[in-house]
Amino acid sequence: MRILLAPDSFKEAASAEAIAQAMARGVMYGNPQAECRLLPLSDGGEGLTQALVHATGGTLRDVETVDAIGRPITAQYGFLGNNHASCNLHTAVVELASASGLERVSPADRNALTASTFGTGLLIRAAIDAGADRIVLGLGGSATTDGGTGLARALGFRFLDSAGHDIPLGGGVLADLERIDDSEVPDFVKNVPIVLACDVTNPLTGSEGAAHVFAPQKGATTTQVERLDRGLANLAHAIMQYSGRDIEHTPGSGAAGGTGGGMLGLFNASIRPGIELVLDLAHGRESCAWADVVITGEGSIDSQTPYGKAPSGIAKLAQSQGTPTIAIGGTVTRDSRTIEALNKAGIVATFGIAPGPADLATLIAGTERNVEITCAAIASTLRITAATSPCESA
Amino acid sequence: MRILLAPDSFKEAASAEAIAQAMARGVMYGNPQAECRLLPLSDGGEGLTQALVHATGGTLRDVETVDAIGRPITAQYGFLGNNHASCNLHTAVVELASASGLERVSPADRNALTASTFGTGLLIRAAIDAGADRIVLGLGGSATTDGGTGLARALGFRFLDSAGHDIPLGGGVLADLERIDDSEVPDFVKNVPIVLACDVTNPLTGSEGAAHVFAPQKGATTTQVERLDRGLANLAHAIMQYSGRDIEHTPGSGAAGGTGGGMLGLFNASIRPGIELVLDLAHGRESCAWADVVITGEGSIDSQTPYGKAPSGIAKLAQSQGTPTIAIGGTVTRDSRTIEALNKAGIVATFGIAPGPADLATLIAGTERNVEITCAAIASTLRITAATSPCESA
Repeated sequence: MRILLAPDSFKEAASAEAIAQAMARGVMYGNPQAECRLLPLSDGGEGLTQALVHATGGTLRDVETVDAIGRPITAQYGFLGNNHASCNLHTAVVELASASGLERVSPADRNALTASTFGTGLLIRAAIDAGADRIVLGLGGSATTDGGTGLARALGFRFLDSAGHDIPLGGGVLADLERIDDSEVPDFVKNVPIVLACDVTNPLTGSEGAAHVFAPQKGATTTQVERLDRGLANLAHAIMQYSGRDIEHTPGSGAAGGTGGGMLGLFNASIRPGIELVLDLAHGRESCAWADVVITGEGSIDSQTPYGKAPSGIAKLAQSQGTPTIAIGGTVTRDSRTIEALNKAGIVATFGIAPGPADLATLIAGTERNVEITCAAIASTLRITAATSPCESA
Repeated sequence: MRILLAPDSFKEAASAEAIAQAMARGVMYGNPQAECRLLPLSDGGEGLTQALVHATGGTLRDVETVDAIGRPITAQYGFLGNNHASCNLHTAVVELASASGLERVSPADRNALTASTFGTGLLIRAAIDAGADRIVLGLGGSATTDGGTGLARALGFRFLDSAGHDIPLGGGVLADLERIDDSEVPDFVKNVPIVLACDVTNPLTGSEGAAHVFAPQKGATTTQVERLDRGLANLAHAIMQYSGRDIEHTPGSGAAGGTGGGMLGLFNASIRPGIELVLDLAHGRESCAWADVVITGEGSIDSQTPYGKAPSGIAKLAQSQGTPTIAIGGTVTRDSRTIEALNKAGIVATFGIAPGPADLATLIAGTERNVEITCAAIASTLRITAATSPCESA
């Protein structure tokens, strides 16, 4: 029996890779004859770099950079390995969360107005300097609302006020932006293809925009939200003058504090759903065709899961190859409609890993063990009918 | 696919029958082509009557009787139906817990010294009057420590003190017992075969005996425990004089407050493990041979489960027929040794039904739904390999 182990991370509990390893231990216990292939996933947020580097046999690189509030840090990006599905491009993968992530900054230190994506720009510059001719940029988890202007600045763009001076970093001063200057941006930087892994469809501005929807969780007050929203609108205006591109209402422009919009307006960038991108680069289709069954999972299998999350992404791809998918989760839905939607997406069975009454902290602490035992039970169960199928007993 | 659904009750949550029904709903959802057979189990405690009546197509009877502290109540016993495996005996099944159970008496009303099995004796008398020529008596869950003397009294036995007067009901006065008189017990009552469904091996007296081990949970103080223990020792002495049987150290004599010992000493009684008895009377072997897979379950699948509990009982029987068993539980073990012991007993996979972080009360309230969804997932998983087996695709 061939089993593809393709989980997302279990948020706050274990990385996708750790979950896949735990799954493999369990499957080997439940059915020592099973063949396993590990494909840790990411829906484009945290874990994207690790997932793609793992899947393609790539490498991780450390870079000295700065976090969202300018403190020196070491962050990582990755180069995809030879066994990725794409053409001969030398692809680097960068997560916005790696340098400019919210998790990097304690709540007390967060500053929604000055937080900047500059550090991520330094990562991309390092990747290009190291030979990257394509960038995959994972949006999500950022501490910023600067419309990606910090990132662009690290790559040579200048953002000038009416007096021709560079405006400071951060979204709080974007209302002062008068003109974008790319005279110091090398052509190969302007032209390098950048694929944005992005799962939200929010526009740049307005009630569904980056400031209103995402800035409050980054520490913005109501007044600051309004200021950031006006700043992003002004950025859209400046970008229109610079490149002629209207990004203000483009779906995904509002991702990662407007970094989606900034990238689309200033660079050779395009947006793709994170899980699609991962599955594409990581030979997902071929692995699904190889497998008799896929086991996926994430922290919570809920009403969101059928829509663009990693488990449903792999399940749909598997379904297209005639392979059924089983999902496991720390929390699993009991809602009939959600279960039907999961079935439709190719997830034929969902198992919770909780061993009984327990609070969240206890379950999180036991995640890998619970994944292991649950997958042992799944592998044993799969083995029952395989072993008793008429042809094998004949 | 043929699936035998053979759960025990989930204590405090749902009866074995309700669990089996929930399992069936789930299996039908997960694999509408599956054939199900329902075999709700009992390990001899609560649920024995219902399990046996269900399995044999029998009937339940209501009887006016008294509880352990003498209050009038209505309690049930059952007659096995025609489709039971045994010879032509007309078998009644009685649970000690039904009339004389601890659950019947609130903690404030409990009295370890006067509590009596008299009400259970009335049930047995009613069964014999209705034509029973064999009694299955489920020990367990009793509020009593009277050595079964109350029960015997309801069937005509007299327990006399040195002055030749009947001693009062309850274990507290057994030290006054001088002589047992059966002159008023009809021969057919003395001779009716009584099978005791019993899962404990405690002797009647001493540190492992009925008083020391079980009386404290029935409300006995330390002083009362000593008094009850001395009373049971005196009962053993009187029984030795009456029938020449030494029951004081017989394994199982200590069951149900010494009712095990009293029955062995005074009646034509024998002890059998509850789950064996149930499986025997309920065509368990045949159903296991019929099935491709068994799904069992109980409230907690833990270190006790491999030893004489219903899930391991059915699993061992199924294993002897070449049929693997899957277990589900409200709480499931994560201990490697226990999992190995379960595997050895024929339980190849164990799934928890908890959908995520939750306290016991919440999980108990959701039991049937959680069982249903978990069994749907199991049935879907079993279907995967059955559907993709080479011969079916050929």
